[in-house]
Amino acid sequence: MNYFSSDFKLGILGGGQLGKMLLYDTRKFDIHTVVMDPSEDAPCRIGCNEFVQGDLMDFDAVYDFGKKVDLLTIEIENVNVEALEKLEKEGLRIYPSPATLRTIQNKAKQKLFYIDHDIPTAPFRRFAYTSEIHTALRNESIDFPFVWKSARFGYDGRGVKVIRTYSDLEGLPDVECIAEDMIPFKNELAVIVARNSKGDMVTYPVVEMEFHPSANQVEYVICPARIAPEVAEKAQLIALKTSRAYGHTGLLAVEMFQTEDDRILVNEVAPRPHNSGHYSIEASYTSQFEQHLRAILGLPLGNAESKVGGIMVNLTGEEGHTGKVVYENMDTIMKMDGVTPHIYGKKETRPFRKMGHVTIVHKDIAKAREIAGKVKDTIRVVSV
Amino acid sequence: MNYFSSDFKLGILGGGQLGKMLLYDTRKFDIHTVVMDPSEDAPCRIGCNEFVQGDLMDFDAVYDFGKKVDLLTIEIENVNVEALEKLEKEGLRIYPSPATLRTIQNKAKQKLFYIDHDIPTAPFRRFAYTSEIHTALRNESIDFPFVWKSARFGYDGRGVKVIRTYSDLEGLPDVECIAEDMIPFKNELAVIVARNSKGDMVTYPVVEMEFHPSANQVEYVICPARIAPEVAEKAQLIALKTSRAYGHTGLLAVEMFQTEDDRILVNEVAPRPHNSGHYSIEASYTSQFEQHLRAILGLPLGNAESKVGGIMVNLTGEEGHTGKVVYENMDTIMKMDGVTPHIYGKKETRPFRKMGHVTIVHKDIAKAREIAGKVKDTIRVVSV
Repeated sequence: MNYFSSDFKLGILGGGQLGKMLLYDTRKFDIHTVVMDPSEDAPCRIGCNEFVQGDLMDFDAVYDFGKKVDLLTIEIENVNVEALEKLEKEGLRIYPSPATLRTIQNKAKQKLFYIDHDIPTAPFRRFAYTSEIHTALRNESIDFPFVWKSARFGYDGRGVKVIRTYSDLEGLPDVECIAEDMIPFKNELAVIVARNSKGDMVTYPVVEMEFHPSANQVEYVICPARIAPEVAEKAQLIALKTSRAYGHTGLLAVEMFQTEDDRILVNEVAPRPHNSGHYSIEASYTSQFEQHLRAILGLPLGNAESKVGGIMVNLTGEEGHTGKVVYENMDTIMKMDGVTPHIYGKKETRPFRKMGHVTIVHKDIAKAREIAGKVKDTIRVVSV
Repeated sequence: MNYFSSDFKLGILGGGQLGKMLLYDTRKFDIHTVVMDPSEDAPCRIGCNEFVQGDLMDFDAVYDFGKKVDLLTIEIENVNVEALEKLEKEGLRIYPSPATLRTIQNKAKQKLFYIDHDIPTAPFRRFAYTSEIHTALRNESIDFPFVWKSARFGYDGRGVKVIRTYSDLEGLPDVECIAEDMIPFKNELAVIVARNSKGDMVTYPVVEMEFHPSANQVEYVICPARIAPEVAEKAQLIALKTSRAYGHTGLLAVEMFQTEDDRILVNEVAPRPHNSGHYSIEASYTSQFEQHLRAILGLPLGNAESKVGGIMVNLTGEEGHTGKVVYENMDTIMKMDGVTPHIYGKKETRPFRKMGHVTIVHKDIAKAREIAGKVKDTIRVVSV
């Protein structure tokens, strides 16, 4: 198949910021794209060749969309897997595979997958309903404290809660869930692995999420992570093992904990370009988006090493501001060395909504971290 | 003016590959773009917010287009300047300025501009018609050999001819032209200068055009140029002086000759992103396209230094091939370290047509040059 011509059509389910950044590289390679998203104002509306407005969870919408394209990928996991399974049976290449999506969409299944494949993960118990946790606590088969996680649609902090007492359980939805041991960790790390349809693999360097000292929120993604080389190597090997276990094609972002005693535990994965890899646009020889394309198209993988140190700061809507967005002090941050803002193009801001990100690159990662701190203190995402 | 919102509209005259690459960065900054191009299949058709099909040389088309936007830039010089002058009088910000475009559109005027501003350039004579050259030769006010250049629309090698005998003059159009001394030079260099509307300036490193040993065609653009630091500094100073002389806002690509005795002579300029700056997408802290946006929007200029060495190879249509394009051996070049192909998206190839380019980056520029040679020997742009 000659991808570099207009005969081939790549379908992308989801038209948000990840898709938008993927489209920079489909344009670079002149690959014809067809995007489906429920929103008529989706960031991908511009930059794709064809746009279809449709519900990603609707069987018919996803199935009909799949019939239009030669290869299908996603930029969001929450899509109708039944439709994908039917399309796959009918011969469509879909990366990530519907089987992988089915496992990942359910956190309990995903955790069991790690157990089955001997991939280290924090101990947990699975419950068909949150209410069953009470029984388990009474039987002393689990103890406080633990982390409650809804099995489904629990991404981005929603559907996760630390439970220290019975009262913390109040108000939780009565759904399939897990109760995970609280393991003290010193770092939250991530490794992106790319694997193409021929089985070639490369890993990006380990990145580190630096948290705000009081608010429990990632402030900086730092590449490379400031960890010992042997810990980094262990994290990369576990990420490779995880990608192989899924028989994955495309990018797999593996989120992990580094425990106090330097064990690595897999937390969860995303089978696509990921927030933890945005730094790669400016810092890496091959950006995660180009790499995802190379992987799913069966092209040779690119060099995943970095040209320079990279740090990413998420631009999230400030608290107390809802409405038409304004980015304050953009001029000031753009004066700083190695600073590139990315604005996703969402018209309305809301507290904590991801509106964009800023990358800071520098040969010296300590200097990049210093500039990143200034960026964080300067830029404001507010409403008019 | 808050550019990072949908209220502001940036107009771009021309929708070719330069515009297409500029749009990666307008998308990154979420700047609303309106593009005009005569071709309905223009590469910019995808990636802009609004597309207008129109003749860039037509007064009404350009004037009406200018009325739709808040700021106007170009990706090609051959546009109707009278319309731009009227728009400028009516208050529209236009970068490059109509006055600069008027000078640059006419090679004789452009050369006189360098004389007037004490910018070194090869000696020349100006003629209202090619036929007047015969008289000058008979009067011995000029001698063979010389370079004949049509004053208008003589870009990209067309409208330029080396004249060694009377017979070389045969068949040339009888138009306004110049006869330029043939100066032996050892290198063809280029420097891109960015100047924003506040007068801040930065220069990119000097790049070197490496020619094919027999065919008189640029094969590689190499950054940094393999020249002595004092020559590089002289070239950068002359480029800065040229940008200041034009009172220019935006990018100015200054093409120069390094003579056998290390003088620097300005050949011609392009007031926009330029082929000699394509390497910057992968190699520089700030790509030339982002820099052009920063400059025309009056934003702080970015770091113009390189992260790594960069080489660009143009992908041009092979001789003997006209029709639907195919890129042969793309897989092979994509296996090589630090190689990124850019495909412009033109459906039909023709001999020598610019269809794309390939960037090769490496910390070691000698290694990059070695890989670039392999890329050049491997990739083929042919018809089906």
